[in-house]
Amino acid sequence: MRQSRLFTKARREAPSDEVAKNAQLLVRAGYIHKEMAGVYSFLPLGLRTLNKIIGIIREEMNAIGGEEVLLTTLQDPEAWKKSGRWDDSVVDVWFKTHLKNGSELGLGNTHEEALTALMTEHISSYKDLPRYVYQFQNKFRNETRAKSGIMRAREFIMKDLYSFSTNLESHNEFYEKVAAAYENIFKRVGIGEKTYRTFASGGSFSKYSHEYQTICGAGEDTIYIDDSKRLALNKEVYDDAEVYATTGIDKANLKEAKAIEVGNIFTLSTRFSEALGLSYKDAEGKATPVFMGSYGIGPGRLMGTIVELMADENGLVWPESVAPFSVHLMSLGKSGDEAFQMADALYADFVKAGVEVLYDDRDISAGQKFTESDLLGIPRRIIVGRDAVATGQFEVVTRATGEVAKKTRTELLS
Amino acid sequence: MRQSRLFTKARREAPSDEVAKNAQLLVRAGYIHKEMAGVYSFLPLGLRTLNKIIGIIREEMNAIGGEEVLLTTLQDPEAWKKSGRWDDSVVDVWFKTHLKNGSELGLGNTHEEALTALMTEHISSYKDLPRYVYQFQNKFRNETRAKSGIMRAREFIMKDLYSFSTNLESHNEFYEKVAAAYENIFKRVGIGEKTYRTFASGGSFSKYSHEYQTICGAGEDTIYIDDSKRLALNKEVYDDAEVYATTGIDKANLKEAKAIEVGNIFTLSTRFSEALGLSYKDAEGKATPVFMGSYGIGPGRLMGTIVELMADENGLVWPESVAPFSVHLMSLGKSGDEAFQMADALYADFVKAGVEVLYDDRDISAGQKFTESDLLGIPRRIIVGRDAVATGQFEVVTRATGEVAKKTRTELLS
Repeated sequence: MRQSRLFTKARREAPSDEVAKNAQLLVRAGYIHKEMAGVYSFLPLGLRTLNKIIGIIREEMNAIGGEEVLLTTLQDPEAWKKSGRWDDSVVDVWFKTHLKNGSELGLGNTHEEALTALMTEHISSYKDLPRYVYQFQNKFRNETRAKSGIMRAREFIMKDLYSFSTNLESHNEFYEKVAAAYENIFKRVGIGEKTYRTFASGGSFSKYSHEYQTICGAGEDTIYIDDSKRLALNKEVYDDAEVYATTGIDKANLKEAKAIEVGNIFTLSTRFSEALGLSYKDAEGKATPVFMGSYGIGPGRLMGTIVELMADENGLVWPESVAPFSVHLMSLGKSGDEAFQMADALYADFVKAGVEVLYDDRDISAGQKFTESDLLGIPRRIIVGRDAVATGQFEVVTRATGEVAKKTRTELLS
Repeated sequence: MRQSRLFTKARREAPSDEVAKNAQLLVRAGYIHKEMAGVYSFLPLGLRTLNKIIGIIREEMNAIGGEEVLLTTLQDPEAWKKSGRWDDSVVDVWFKTHLKNGSELGLGNTHEEALTALMTEHISSYKDLPRYVYQFQNKFRNETRAKSGIMRAREFIMKDLYSFSTNLESHNEFYEKVAAAYENIFKRVGIGEKTYRTFASGGSFSKYSHEYQTICGAGEDTIYIDDSKRLALNKEVYDDAEVYATTGIDKANLKEAKAIEVGNIFTLSTRFSEALGLSYKDAEGKATPVFMGSYGIGPGRLMGTIVELMADENGLVWPESVAPFSVHLMSLGKSGDEAFQMADALYADFVKAGVEVLYDDRDISAGQKFTESDLLGIPRRIIVGRDAVATGQFEVVTRATGEVAKKTRTELLS
């Protein structure tokens, strides 16, 4: 798209009310807008990146047999009373509201209850299992503090997947498929190497759950890494002797690190199916509660994590897979002159070739264009100035490394 | 996809708690799930159709220069107090909630306030105009009654577009572009012929606004149609002498009809820009309030309208453009026999050719398959039974008309 038509403007200064690097840079670059603490709107560039992340997650969820749905924000207390999670003393992040007749409603902070209740209409026999259902949907969490930008928001999009299996064995098989899919996702968005499968406590129905933790100084969590095994432990289980026996990890080899939880996978067992009456008849006709798991990734948090890890002193740096555009084309000089005409033609070529290109066609100084281009963080910058007009060679700068190459039009388009 | 893997099951009986035809059929067919009155989840088939509608609207919005964003549900009262719309006595559909510190928040029922406030950071000069910003985002409206299924929900996705122009003339030009885009949308989803541009009252800042009304017995509105001019008037302006002068409509030619409001376009003038301080400097440096418009379409309501208009006594009937799948393939007989093998092969061919196909590969009776297929309403049904095995010709049934044709594999794939 032509940057002259993009409504967002980059800012010179970081917003004074943000402490998190991700929010500072994303607000400055016009990717997001802060509505209030912990509540962010996504502007055109930010939404493009968010949708790329969502697209990658969706592909991986579909590949393991996930079926996509869209559940609701408004929650009927009924199901939550059955599971014992309606009370504010049990779940302390509720936002609640009222219908006009005075009935209380909740804003969904997660969807185990709603989906388990829904599935009672579609699962009755072992032949109906397994089922894997996921969504990208807003969650609302009334966090006391919200200082980590889009990494811990009060309103945020979550990918939540729920599995419905006949028994533990079948559950475990899928659980490992999700683990593999999650590893693909973190690799594809560029944080694979820094992300560790991390043992966490499992709650009352399972010994352990797993978090995916990405090593980062801005993280709110502390984890203990065994690099040789590519595994980690979180604080909850660090002093649990059994976890060392289970994993073969030697406590002496662990190194401590700050990390961001970018995903979690969780065995729910029959916690919700028993509370909400979700059972199936086995081959002998015996009613048995469905065995469940839940699996979360926050695309917004992932986006924030990528910023925290990759941005440099000049601004954002996006991996190709999630960048809002793949090329940042810019014309230097003045509107109407030869360089602009040449850039216009190259822009048309890129559009025709299906390349996602942001074209800075504005009549502003080269310096301002470079500064803003660094801030926006698009992977490759192509410069069309006097040089290109004279030589037919375009300067291509890689944002992440600063590497410069010269390419002809034909090379660029191939 | 293979129907054996689709988690939703069709129901024989209409749900007893739904009065609207759209909700009865969509729930029966497993497209949607009722969480509570006026609050519906979208299940895999329903979400596919909803996303096709959203895709069509997005294409048309992008084609007229719209830039997509995603604003938030949680609303800070500040902006709404400035516009005078925070009070429940002014806007009677608010859902409100609280932060932990006791501050009151609203759940967005529309986004003029939030977006106008946001745009003050990006518009300062006439050179920054015009701008067209839209989103697909949840709205929350605390309706007293919610009996029209997905046509009037308490939580629903809305496409809301807002325009920011220098003056009335520039605004009017875009307003007519939106009108044309809306007409394209209604045509593309199959309700163009029954949909009328309808004059409605404009509120305090503009004489008229326009609704798009689709003639349908299930509609909540009454309109008056002039068929020769392809225009209509709503009740608000029916007795307004000026509207007849403006439009050249002769009251005597009008015929009354029930209709569903499927869209609206609205001149806001400076109502919100003045309240929220959104102004631009003109070429002489004089600060002038930005001239705004707003333009809404509810994809869920559109989906409900299509159901109300096209469904027949056997179930849903989708136009190709919004159908969850384009082909409903079914094998008759028993799993493993020749017809199933032939259907399996044809399914693989379709998938390879990129055709969106739902394949009923379940081991159930032909009668049940036909009944469910009618209910689901996919445009074309292809039957693979003994006949196909014997002749190599497949029966293709058009859902809307019942028309039957015989085609070879090669014809089907071309």
